Amino acid sequence: MQQSLEALAGVVGAAHVLTGSDTARYVVDERGLFHGRALAVIRPADAREVAEVVRVCVARGVGMVPQGGNTGYCGGATPDPSGTQVVVSLERLNAVLAVDANAYTMTVQAGVVLAQAQAAAAQHARLLPLSMGSQESCQIGGNLSTNAGGLAVLKYGTARELVLGLEVVLPDGRILDRLTTLRKDNTGYDLKQLFVGAEGTLGIITAATLKLHPAVGRHTAWASVRDVAAACALLADLRALSADAVTSFEYISAHSLGHVRRALPALTPPLAAGEHHVLIECLDPEAEPREESAVTRALAQALDTAGVEDAVLAQNETQRRALWRIREGIPAAEKALGGSIKHDVSVALGDVPAYVERASAVVRARWPEARLSIYGHIGDGNVHFNVLAPEAADADAFRRGEGAGISTALHDLAHAMRGSFSAEHGIGVLKRDTLGHYGDPVALDVMRALKERLDPRGLMNPGKLVPVAAAV
Amino acid sequence: MQQSLEALAGVVGAAHVLTGSDTARYVVDERGLFHGRALAVIRPADAREVAEVVRVCVARGVGMVPQGGNTGYCGGATPDPSGTQVVVSLERLNAVLAVDANAYTMTVQAGVVLAQAQAAAAQHARLLPLSMGSQESCQIGGNLSTNAGGLAVLKYGTARELVLGLEVVLPDGRILDRLTTLRKDNTGYDLKQLFVGAEGTLGIITAATLKLHPAVGRHTAWASVRDVAAACALLADLRALSADAVTSFEYISAHSLGHVRRALPALTPPLAAGEHHVLIECLDPEAEPREESAVTRALAQALDTAGVEDAVLAQNETQRRALWRIREGIPAAEKALGGSIKHDVSVALGDVPAYVERASAVVRARWPEARLSIYGHIGDGNVHFNVLAPEAADADAFRRGEGAGISTALHDLAHAMRGSFSAEHGIGVLKRDTLGHYGDPVALDVMRALKERLDPRGLMNPGKLVPVAAAV
Repeated sequence: MQQSLEALAGVVGAAHVLTGSDTARYVVDERGLFHGRALAVIRPADAREVAEVVRVCVARGVGMVPQGGNTGYCGGATPDPSGTQVVVSLERLNAVLAVDANAYTMTVQAGVVLAQAQAAAAQHARLLPLSMGSQESCQIGGNLSTNAGGLAVLKYGTARELVLGLEVVLPDGRILDRLTTLRKDNTGYDLKQLFVGAEGTLGIITAATLKLHPAVGRHTAWASVRDVAAACALLADLRALSADAVTSFEYISAHSLGHVRRALPALTPPLAAGEHHVLIECLDPEAEPREESAVTRALAQALDTAGVEDAVLAQNETQRRALWRIREGIPAAEKALGGSIKHDVSVALGDVPAYVERASAVVRARWPEARLSIYGHIGDGNVHFNVLAPEAADADAFRRGEGAGISTALHDLAHAMRGSFSAEHGIGVLKRDTLGHYGDPVALDVMRALKERLDPRGLMNPGKLVPVAAAV
Repeated sequence: MQQSLEALAGVVGAAHVLTGSDTARYVVDERGLFHGRALAVIRPADAREVAEVVRVCVARGVGMVPQGGNTGYCGGATPDPSGTQVVVSLERLNAVLAVDANAYTMTVQAGVVLAQAQAAAAQHARLLPLSMGSQESCQIGGNLSTNAGGLAVLKYGTARELVLGLEVVLPDGRILDRLTTLRKDNTGYDLKQLFVGAEGTLGIITAATLKLHPAVGRHTAWASVRDVAAACALLADLRALSADAVTSFEYISAHSLGHVRRALPALTPPLAAGEHHVLIECLDPEAEPREESAVTRALAQALDTAGVEDAVLAQNETQRRALWRIREGIPAAEKALGGSIKHDVSVALGDVPAYVERASAVVRARWPEARLSIYGHIGDGNVHFNVLAPEAADADAFRRGEGAGISTALHDLAHAMRGSFSAEHGIGVLKRDTLGHYGDPVALDVMRALKERLDPRGLMNPGKLVPVAAAV
């Protein structure tokens, strides 16, 4: 082990081989759910050093755990407890390499923090649409390795859809340079998408070229609707009327709104009544977006339907931020009320009303005292169907005890509807066995075949994402 | 061989095992450039039969050539001349399985003709944006296997970006069912994109779920601009001013326009003067798109710049069609003037002006009498830089003789600028050695590794796309 550390120090310099207590913030995830140990944390300076680090580790059989901002929810960036793996931190690869406003592209190293990348694009009047709660600390490399979702997927897609080019260090230490800005290039297999969402199990992303969009004005509305089906119909109509100007379409149940009002009384919902709410954001090409425009007319027309009970339009940035704070306050409210059993389900858009109805019925039948919190990116079919312990119960005891079967019940239901148990948060170690359980056997076989072929020694983020094959 | 045919007839029925002269239209490509022979043409009825056909072929070591509408440009769907391969035609898998207007998705079998899929979407007031000259005969399976481009890539992406889910028969005869409509599903590697653009070398696509968009109005303009750089700047401005409403942005040089005027005198260019022209199409959310709107204002503002010499806006559908007929008439005009040496180059958007300038200089220096025809989807960085024989020359003799080095010179130039020698037409057999020559060695190694792992016996579209490894 000492020899390995010396060889690694020879690559990155002794100052960038962290051991002992210096590794503390790298071996536990941000939420404190996953605790590992590391032989060392290695902080290479560039792709060439990453490649050299990989070659040293392969030669010595040392497992590598790539790590960006360490904000993931599934333990995908935490080393195991053995203390034999090294964490390869990309944080020193933090340069914005290029922003091309005319071509609507930017090229960044993997360790660039998402908010920095957004700001670099904004300086050129361009929008990097990827955005999420962790954007002040998560890094582009992690966003791509986990195919991050967030708040603007409805319009712009997940991280995967923003990638034009990629630079990856392969498990054998070679650099795969696909760092292209070409919009069209039909010369062989699309290798880059193999690494996006692979959670570092097939190689280490070191840089990416991303698509940018025009920076535009926004309209933000809050509406109460008759039911979840009315919310989905409203979205379909608004997409058609506005020629796809809808960037966010977030559902908030009265349950979740009640939790916010109770736990965060400073936040005032714009519409007190109603069982079902949606927060809508549209882009607007007009120079002065808060005046009347084609998009405001489309919004008004879509909202003028029997399924919409009431609606308000934010008149300025202060009002807009106030609406978003309510939506973004839901996780904090749940936490203040004892925490929740969280789910990250997706189903086909047309199945969202049925999923919410059936999942509610399942919980009410088997856990009648449990409290619901239903919200999420329903424009993407992505429902956060969370469950809080009964009012009087000890929340931790409920989660470990009688509530322990809730996740299986809700995942079973999603699976039966051809839905997903992990819409945007990925697999890591948290859901690896869940993937082994629900995953299509043929798809799992192909994943294992790709993993074995590209990383035959299994040293690239060992134990993450790819389920162990069932014994025959 | 007879036993193989009997076994295949046992799967699909004797009526769907074509031999002898019945195979004629399947063993030559549409342009008549590639001539093969087939042991038989097999016409399975559904994915289950495709899977069974694959298993029979694997058991007997028979190579398979998947074929859709047979409209490709690179010979990717033509069997080799040995007469030992079977063509697996997907034409009987021609059902539109579902259109979900609210979810903006459709699910189709691989053999559905593109125009039929477009029509099925239009019946639900939705747009399947993939469109190209061959749409009356090309099939969705072929569009996906070749990652087809076409006329609306700028806004909607290539075929790859329209895929939500895929059903594929693997080289071992198993069916990989990823026929999902989920917008978000982070449960493992993105397997579907491995098969999109793989030209049937990793398996046979049997069905797909595609993203749809709102059906919208359009504005179409023709402008003459100072130079290619002014065209590119106009596009960048218009994207920003219109909040990305630009769906097509086609460049037409005075060279190409001259060929059209000469060969197709019935077509009248709207602006007679000018060296550089662009055909622009924008979508418009307004109900009556030809009246003044935000998009027409954005168009007017973008066109009011020093780089634009003159511009006209189509006032009705007749005028719009007339503009497109000029653009679409270029290949026919080249053919009427003796044919051209065609190129399908892409470079970064910012490099388009330099590529056009340098490529023109190369041709003028070495082939001073040759005639140029420069046009293409420059909004995608995709230039069709075609070269016609000198006025007085025999075109065929020129192509075979003194003009034979033109393609290498133009591809070398694109490669030196980190561009692509095949932006949208793919590889097939035509450009397999070209890919071997220009391809990044690491990328080629990874492609070969994937091919060998998924198709170890090399029976899936043998000899296509994947370059032979250089002898060590």
